[in-house]
Amino acid sequence: MAVATQSLEELCINSIRFLAVDAIEKSKSGHPGLPMGAAPMAFVLWDRFMRYNPKNPKWFNRDRFVLSAGHGCMLQYAMLYLTGYDSVTIEDIKQFRQWGSRTPGHPENFETPGVEVTTGPLGQGIANAVGLAMAEAHLAAKFNKPDAKIVDHYTYVLLGDGCNMEGISGEAASLAGHYGLGKLIALYDDNHISIDGSTNVAFTEDVSKRFEAYGWHVLHVKDGNTDLDAISKAVEVAKAITDKPTMIKVTTTIGYGSPNKQNTAGIHGAALGVDETALTRKNLGWEYAPFEIPSDVLNHTRKAVERGADYESDWNKALADYKAKYPAEAAEFERFISGKLPEGWDKVLPTYTTEDKALPTRKHSETCLNKLAAVLPELIGGSADLTHSNLTEIKGFGDFQKGQYQNRNIHFGVREHAMGAICNGMALHGSGLIPYGATFLIFTDYMRAAIRLAALSQAGSIWVMTHDSIGQGEDGPTHQPIETLASLRAIPDLTVIRPADGNECSGAYTVAIEKSKAQASTLLAFTRQNVPNLVGTSIEAVKKGAYTVVDCAGTPELILIGTGSELSLCVSAGEKLTAQGKKVRVVSMPSIDLFDAQDAAYKESVLPKAVTKRLSVEAASSFGWHKYVGSEGDTVSIDHFGASAPGGICMEKFGFTVDNVLAKAIGLLG
Amino acid sequence: MAVATQSLEELCINSIRFLAVDAIEKSKSGHPGLPMGAAPMAFVLWDRFMRYNPKNPKWFNRDRFVLSAGHGCMLQYAMLYLTGYDSVTIEDIKQFRQWGSRTPGHPENFETPGVEVTTGPLGQGIANAVGLAMAEAHLAAKFNKPDAKIVDHYTYVLLGDGCNMEGISGEAASLAGHYGLGKLIALYDDNHISIDGSTNVAFTEDVSKRFEAYGWHVLHVKDGNTDLDAISKAVEVAKAITDKPTMIKVTTTIGYGSPNKQNTAGIHGAALGVDETALTRKNLGWEYAPFEIPSDVLNHTRKAVERGADYESDWNKALADYKAKYPAEAAEFERFISGKLPEGWDKVLPTYTTEDKALPTRKHSETCLNKLAAVLPELIGGSADLTHSNLTEIKGFGDFQKGQYQNRNIHFGVREHAMGAICNGMALHGSGLIPYGATFLIFTDYMRAAIRLAALSQAGSIWVMTHDSIGQGEDGPTHQPIETLASLRAIPDLTVIRPADGNECSGAYTVAIEKSKAQASTLLAFTRQNVPNLVGTSIEAVKKGAYTVVDCAGTPELILIGTGSELSLCVSAGEKLTAQGKKVRVVSMPSIDLFDAQDAAYKESVLPKAVTKRLSVEAASSFGWHKYVGSEGDTVSIDHFGASAPGGICMEKFGFTVDNVLAKAIGLLG
Repeated sequence: MAVATQSLEELCINSIRFLAVDAIEKSKSGHPGLPMGAAPMAFVLWDRFMRYNPKNPKWFNRDRFVLSAGHGCMLQYAMLYLTGYDSVTIEDIKQFRQWGSRTPGHPENFETPGVEVTTGPLGQGIANAVGLAMAEAHLAAKFNKPDAKIVDHYTYVLLGDGCNMEGISGEAASLAGHYGLGKLIALYDDNHISIDGSTNVAFTEDVSKRFEAYGWHVLHVKDGNTDLDAISKAVEVAKAITDKPTMIKVTTTIGYGSPNKQNTAGIHGAALGVDETALTRKNLGWEYAPFEIPSDVLNHTRKAVERGADYESDWNKALADYKAKYPAEAAEFERFISGKLPEGWDKVLPTYTTEDKALPTRKHSETCLNKLAAVLPELIGGSADLTHSNLTEIKGFGDFQKGQYQNRNIHFGVREHAMGAICNGMALHGSGLIPYGATFLIFTDYMRAAIRLAALSQAGSIWVMTHDSIGQGEDGPTHQPIETLASLRAIPDLTVIRPADGNECSGAYTVAIEKSKAQASTLLAFTRQNVPNLVGTSIEAVKKGAYTVVDCAGTPELILIGTGSELSLCVSAGEKLTAQGKKVRVVSMPSIDLFDAQDAAYKESVLPKAVTKRLSVEAASSFGWHKYVGSEGDTVSIDHFGASAPGGICMEKFGFTVDNVLAKAIGLLG
Repeated sequence: MAVATQSLEELCINSIRFLAVDAIEKSKSGHPGLPMGAAPMAFVLWDRFMRYNPKNPKWFNRDRFVLSAGHGCMLQYAMLYLTGYDSVTIEDIKQFRQWGSRTPGHPENFETPGVEVTTGPLGQGIANAVGLAMAEAHLAAKFNKPDAKIVDHYTYVLLGDGCNMEGISGEAASLAGHYGLGKLIALYDDNHISIDGSTNVAFTEDVSKRFEAYGWHVLHVKDGNTDLDAISKAVEVAKAITDKPTMIKVTTTIGYGSPNKQNTAGIHGAALGVDETALTRKNLGWEYAPFEIPSDVLNHTRKAVERGADYESDWNKALADYKAKYPAEAAEFERFISGKLPEGWDKVLPTYTTEDKALPTRKHSETCLNKLAAVLPELIGGSADLTHSNLTEIKGFGDFQKGQYQNRNIHFGVREHAMGAICNGMALHGSGLIPYGATFLIFTDYMRAAIRLAALSQAGSIWVMTHDSIGQGEDGPTHQPIETLASLRAIPDLTVIRPADGNECSGAYTVAIEKSKAQASTLLAFTRQNVPNLVGTSIEAVKKGAYTVVDCAGTPELILIGTGSELSLCVSAGEKLTAQGKKVRVVSMPSIDLFDAQDAAYKESVLPKAVTKRLSVEAASSFGWHKYVGSEGDTVSIDHFGASAPGGICMEKFGFTVDNVLAKAIGLLG
């Protein structure tokens, strides 16, 4: 059909399609299939329903949109460009997937204002969206008043077959149904194609029925390619259903408009090529040059700028009204969204002396969480069904449940991966929330993709991981981390802290809270078993990652480096060596990441180059420790799987004893 | 009810319960709730249905039983003891969860004959069971003849609420439904309790409806505590349905029989205590001392020994008959289950010279897989919806699909985690299958728990991971591994190999296949982009993990260590340095794991202690490299996230160029 016969809406939709086709054609890389098929639903959503302000992408009360099928990012960039965001110009679109561009190969919230979360790894986005909707529900319940609503938005998420195959999406959808998140609306781009071809090869379940089983309201738009009114109608119904999340299955044709490639896997993830691009232009009656958008289209889509300014201005008035009526709540709300911590918050964290009782560091963690919860109302989180093992309940703040969204203890169920992505969604809601998620350290393996994305996407999630070594005991090797600390320390931009005692736990939380507000993620590793409180530990010192807890006069002959539960072994071995006349320094290294960030002078002051005899002691893999012990150093470590036996026995059998540390130290001293 | 009034079956069931209660009471650690509630269904299954031979736990044609809710392992140990397995005596039960026992805290196939797979991390077992059922379906389709069935067993799996909350179980169940695995029967212990309390706090979905949506047949036993006939009837129905897997929801009471703790989270994972144990004895009319089992019970349950001998003897006759009729197939079948490789299998792997065309190592991987598939009919596997990116199709061997179980290309869909556990299940079927699973290297994050369990449980799964660095390119940081290699190298008993060229790819597959047959798992990392074939590489050398590819006369001043796509940078830089009169050795290190396993003399011959100036070059995190470059060495590495741009640009911008290697090398030489 020629342009002349196309309605304005058709022109808008084809604009989205060709921005994608042409950008991908130019970069010779990308995924045109989804943008071409999902353009109608995106247009309907952004044009008729979503409330956002292109000139202030961070306007608090905006509707959130998540492209869970992140490979289709040209869809999102096209929408940002068409609706007038400054972050994506036509020049940016021409730079799609190029070095330094604001239009990377998958949506990145830290590169492109207007993008809420970082997606691409499939299934993460829908779980992030559950987190965004939970954040909205929580803040609405906390701040809104019968006569003044300041938190009131929807969360939309577009997901594909790939997302729906991933386990994380099922976990998140089950929780969303359980919580009855009525303002969460998922559009499922049901196009029957994934990379391997027809979904018939691996995915023939009844997705709608599955979502119904989760407690969602499910709708079906049979012709998502052209029936805009059916899409509209479905979204209207979805918005009206407030006690359940809604999944709208929108049946589309992947690569709609490409005569030879639509409805094939060939258009999922590759440029159309010169010939097929020309044929698609002809087929859709698109007479414009690459990157040329008809002015009628822009005139229409850019009305979003004016609408957005109005939305924000109305909301500002509502907020002013709220401020007048509820000054205390308004002040708190403003502090929340400012991302600032309240004055003196860290003063509540306890300190300890060696006289204080030996306790598991998970118990200290519980104390810290509860002290902090009292002064930081933005602290919200919970455990993946291990609340009373992780000790993560914040007492007196109730369970977050359907209709009880003001509460702050979240039961994630045995769904570590969704927990991770939900925390990330809550963190990236931009409302100052500090989400935490907890499980056994070993089960970070189940949620590693979300932990990595927290670090990458600058989500200030805090991971509270307990049972951090073979000290876990009887559960055996399936539950005992060995390589886990190393594997987490290797993740860029994630700060891993394994505190040794009460003071270091308080220090660890100080760092984690500050980092959360600075959009950085921290993982804390705590013991199951008792550890003594030691001389020389402190909150302040933890911030530097490693520091001397016991020193000798003059240059040490040997440095013992311990972390967590093994620091006390180093201290005891150090005492015995000192008694034997050896010059020994004991260093606590709760965080390799924090230590690496110190300047060279500080590092030299703790681990002088001249002292080459160094022994690290950690009930975990030696992997990564040679950087600190050096070529002439050694490790007390465990480079094989653990065993099922009481924790103390495991520690002893695997060499985590003062005697063994002593023996290895003497071996080094020669 | 007093013992006198209990039926023999009730006595048997109470025997299971009290073996669990008393063992856990003695060890003061464990999970009595599940064994007490699930004892009836376990008894019915083992007594009335399952075919196994206690005196030969590895009898090939046995029904497989998987306790996906692995924390309930005392249930399985009780069954093994009662039915007469030599692996679990009453003394072993008294040693529950103690150092060196055969009754560890979760079921471990490598410790306890009769246990098929290692479970505990929730959801893995149900996915392993899908793998076991796929292995059975495949071998049955391959070997059985209309007049001779030698492969014919069911796979039973018992799973709980926790397993059903985990995403991996949904992924696996969706695939099982898609494949119509009629001989897979899942018993869902529906007891409404998980660690955090009632499932009402986090898990209110309709599980039955969800399984129906996956294409399963679903049954419900309303009283799993006492209605043995209803359980029997359900299993009978399930067995008769051959075109779909069946899920039997068995509603039970956790901790059944404990008057004060049943139906509470308190009995899930802790000993009952002296008082409650006594009350439970009274309540269930159990008059026996701890670990005392009535002789009537043992007389009955140990009939399994005779039954088992008969099953095996009948099968041996059938096998003899098969052998007579189909000698070629029988010889192949016997080779399969012997775990032996056919003579000369590795001769098919190609070798290359520097004249051969530069190719991506994933392309070499494709060649190896296809060459091997022709001579190793036990090679079976596929990709998580990235077949044509991972290049893992074995051509001419068809797609494994419902009714096409003889085929060997598996489409796992976008379900990395289930793929991992399914491969492990196939490997642990004990039939010589060599399963492989593929995705992008970065997405090992989604399946890490299964990769770890492959290593721990001695499953010979092979992981084929492509797009192994920032060379991945335009997809950007969500898809570019940085820390991934380090995080995988840290896993005990997993061999990670990153080959540099065609010869090393052939070497990598040689190792992976041999290791698979030796029950060890290997992960292979391949490039997306072209790499040249280099001088000095070889299949044999890969087996040692690291070796000299280019050497100088005399003692080197500098050693350059490269892996994968970066080895060629080292070779080029080495040439330039040599031209400048420097004495340089270039070492290829495709596998740190294999190198670490060499003797000290070999290690010294490759990396002499005296040569302290060493530079590693790998387009990945430096984490772990200091062990090899030493205190005076350096790394060319990337310790931050990547970027979206063409792969070559990423490599250049992040310093993976000959010039940068040269500059760093010269810096080291001073």
